[in-house]
Amino acid sequence: MPFVLRAKKLDFSSGGQPWVVVLQEKEARTLGVVLGDRIEVRWGRQRAIVVAYHTRKKVHKGEIGFFREIWRYRKIINDEPITIKVLSRPPSIEAIIKKLKGEALSYEEMHSIISDIVHHKLSKVEITYFVASSFLKEFSNQELYYMTKAMAVTGEMLKPTRKVVADKHSIGGVAGNRTTMVVVPIVASCGIFIPKTSSRAITSSAGTADTMEVLASVKFNMKQIIKMTKKIGACIIWGGSFRLAPADDYIIRVSHPLAIEPLDKMVVSIMAKKVAMGITHLIVDLPYGPTVKINDRPTAIKVKNKFLYLANRFGIKIKVVISEVHEPIGRGIGPSLEARDVLRVLQQKDYRPADLEIKSVKLAGSLLELTGKAPAGKGHMLAAEALASGRAWSKMREIIGAQGGKVNIDSEDLTLAAARHRFYASFSGKITAIDDKMVDQVARILGAPHDKLAGIYINKRLGQKVRREERLYTLYAQNADRIELALEALKQNRIFTIDRMNVYEGLKG
Amino acid sequence: MPFVLRAKKLDFSSGGQPWVVVLQEKEARTLGVVLGDRIEVRWGRQRAIVVAYHTRKKVHKGEIGFFREIWRYRKIINDEPITIKVLSRPPSIEAIIKKLKGEALSYEEMHSIISDIVHHKLSKVEITYFVASSFLKEFSNQELYYMTKAMAVTGEMLKPTRKVVADKHSIGGVAGNRTTMVVVPIVASCGIFIPKTSSRAITSSAGTADTMEVLASVKFNMKQIIKMTKKIGACIIWGGSFRLAPADDYIIRVSHPLAIEPLDKMVVSIMAKKVAMGITHLIVDLPYGPTVKINDRPTAIKVKNKFLYLANRFGIKIKVVISEVHEPIGRGIGPSLEARDVLRVLQQKDYRPADLEIKSVKLAGSLLELTGKAPAGKGHMLAAEALASGRAWSKMREIIGAQGGKVNIDSEDLTLAAARHRFYASFSGKITAIDDKMVDQVARILGAPHDKLAGIYINKRLGQKVRREERLYTLYAQNADRIELALEALKQNRIFTIDRMNVYEGLKG
Repeated sequence: MPFVLRAKKLDFSSGGQPWVVVLQEKEARTLGVVLGDRIEVRWGRQRAIVVAYHTRKKVHKGEIGFFREIWRYRKIINDEPITIKVLSRPPSIEAIIKKLKGEALSYEEMHSIISDIVHHKLSKVEITYFVASSFLKEFSNQELYYMTKAMAVTGEMLKPTRKVVADKHSIGGVAGNRTTMVVVPIVASCGIFIPKTSSRAITSSAGTADTMEVLASVKFNMKQIIKMTKKIGACIIWGGSFRLAPADDYIIRVSHPLAIEPLDKMVVSIMAKKVAMGITHLIVDLPYGPTVKINDRPTAIKVKNKFLYLANRFGIKIKVVISEVHEPIGRGIGPSLEARDVLRVLQQKDYRPADLEIKSVKLAGSLLELTGKAPAGKGHMLAAEALASGRAWSKMREIIGAQGGKVNIDSEDLTLAAARHRFYASFSGKITAIDDKMVDQVARILGAPHDKLAGIYINKRLGQKVRREERLYTLYAQNADRIELALEALKQNRIFTIDRMNVYEGLKG
Repeated sequence: MPFVLRAKKLDFSSGGQPWVVVLQEKEARTLGVVLGDRIEVRWGRQRAIVVAYHTRKKVHKGEIGFFREIWRYRKIINDEPITIKVLSRPPSIEAIIKKLKGEALSYEEMHSIISDIVHHKLSKVEITYFVASSFLKEFSNQELYYMTKAMAVTGEMLKPTRKVVADKHSIGGVAGNRTTMVVVPIVASCGIFIPKTSSRAITSSAGTADTMEVLASVKFNMKQIIKMTKKIGACIIWGGSFRLAPADDYIIRVSHPLAIEPLDKMVVSIMAKKVAMGITHLIVDLPYGPTVKINDRPTAIKVKNKFLYLANRFGIKIKVVISEVHEPIGRGIGPSLEARDVLRVLQQKDYRPADLEIKSVKLAGSLLELTGKAPAGKGHMLAAEALASGRAWSKMREIIGAQGGKVNIDSEDLTLAAARHRFYASFSGKITAIDDKMVDQVARILGAPHDKLAGIYINKRLGQKVRREERLYTLYAQNADRIELALEALKQNRIFTIDRMNVYEGLKG
């Protein structure tokens, strides 16, 4: 039985999904709308499935309050009549229950779940049941394929227009790992089409999109991307500005509280985005180590095999490069400092970070071989040559220009935060460990990634010998308060572990 | 790192658990508070673990908005300084992850989960992971025992003061099943101590607490109950007015969206409340049938065995009575109509519903035998005699009096809703089915249980023969609109199935 209420816009946010409406408490009871019930609301020609909350005073009897998420995306006029209807259990819920009971899902069932997630028909609690269902009984490869496909098709898709659409993807977790911004111009300068979408930092101090944003805009829609890449064959943009496998965001949101992301889900979400982008050739950079997402080689190999399986099902040519990491890559941590590292490599400055260049050349070389641009074993040379000759930097200038940035920028022109604090070794010794996670955490405390100018510059690498009073790293922040907060954190955990060589005195830094 | 913000009370409700605070969107980002993060808030000597939402306008920079749930229970002054801190993963989350991975939990781990649920430290999503964890790998009996114990001790508990503290519990799902209100006075009139707590309807048209409330108040705190029952040896009150195994409510809330309540969880939640109430002797009424919670006998037996196991672990003497049901018990559906049935039985009116009396006498008899008040096989007679002699009604008058009701009420004095609509058989035949679920649904549409006067009166029973134009049932509602809504629903599903005996004409009712 439908009821009619009057609309009221409220300045409240539930965080996006599911959309939330608010009913006056007593009236909700009369209407039989239990707290958390899924209801259908209709007005004019519009329709949405939302979750109902209760309030005592914010809306009156006869009113229905809309959270910001709804009226930001849909036109709603205060006082206009809204028809509401309590809904029964949709097929996606039946499918989730089936999965919870340990049964395998068909493509249709998987699609109903993913589609309902995307269309705000499932609440957080319901999505949680779905995510939880994968724990005790892992999804079969077949189900992972179904899920990947469903995630791709329920979002925007780029029509494949050429034979080679290349991509490079790094599994996150390594501080400063900005190889994408070096690999893309190298590969594109060799004539390979590479429309690269990247993510912003979620829990880390910078994502590729955050760092690229220091140099140019990264927010573009599908149409703009198609136009841009047609001309110059490449882009480095933020994937979140259009709806690429949008179910992923909602799934991540319920994984966040437990800080658990099943690795299967990670592979699915990456591959769904590649499928949606019409990628044909893919290099995956899969680092493992004590402080990053994947901690050991056997797990890395398992993840690699999932990538190979899915890529094969979708007809994507793939190479997964496994590497062991124990320290940040590059010297800057935080968007501006990382962008400077990238420019130093592309502009071939003498003081460029060698590790970033070496890793980027290796990945670019593999991608050139995978796409057939270089014969086996020769990709590395071709990539190094593109960098040394300045062709890669020329291509990057084209990309920066197309994305509205300053094409004549020099690495040393980049602004960094004003408040600085330098850390020195308090005794001589050898650096035996660098805590990648702590580097990231301190950079966040300093303000990264939202404050693009903040971060850390690392002066020393793992295995290096340092003398007393030699500089170890520098903190950058907008103001002294932020530096103070970082120093507080650094009292409890240090970034560098130095083994004393001669003298014995208190550790610092 | 803690930050200090100024308090602002907001008239918004999240539905209770977890408690919600709202930060200004940009500031939240600066502070590193991700949407949905668990944060600790402190002010004065108070402390709470809450979940953070974002808003753009409702609170300003430097402010923290509190949802109603918090400032209803805790003293908060607008503008007072609030210290906030983002929290790391508590042991309960570790335990949930362990359970999700299929490992068994210790008592300490189970207790950490249940305790954190009760103390608002876990979000809905996290509780959902816990509930989901029981699906693929059922909890062992040992774990069910741990969970029951943890649920009991994390709420209020009644100290056991006597050797016999009796109770009777019906598994819900049968419309009109108000045996409790007959069993309690029978048993109490025989000198057995029976402090009965009941629930309100959640998804049905009336719970025992809703029906009892037609005759007396049902909201009392522990102290009042102790005083009341000391004097007259019994009560029939709403269990929700004090914190009896409070974790249950939060668990039910996340089970609601999927409309799944694992039967194990049901048994645990019932037994936790019995343990908290210090129950020593318990009769469980376990109906099964096509339209109620448990659908078949094998399932009923499984559930029975769980009850026996847990009762044994807690030293509770128990009898589980399994019965098959195919129709409502009693004739009235909806609080007032059901209260009238109860009074008709207690007052031994000629037109009292026989099925309600028979079932109540059977359950009361079993409880009298279990407590040793009657020898084996004689409980039934003792119960029937208590009813026939008027002793049970005298005891019920004492209970009604103690709970502030009108002691001289006659069953026929009860007010019923003004708008009525009678349904007649449109042809002669035999009643071959009564849809219990449909009865319940229509009663809810008519306004029950919030409108106590609304509901359905059933004139015919299963297996009876009816003649054309004989009355089948009557709808009661506050106004004609509600009747219209019910008629709409009855167009799609009927309550009675009648097999034609002579004539063939259109079905009605």
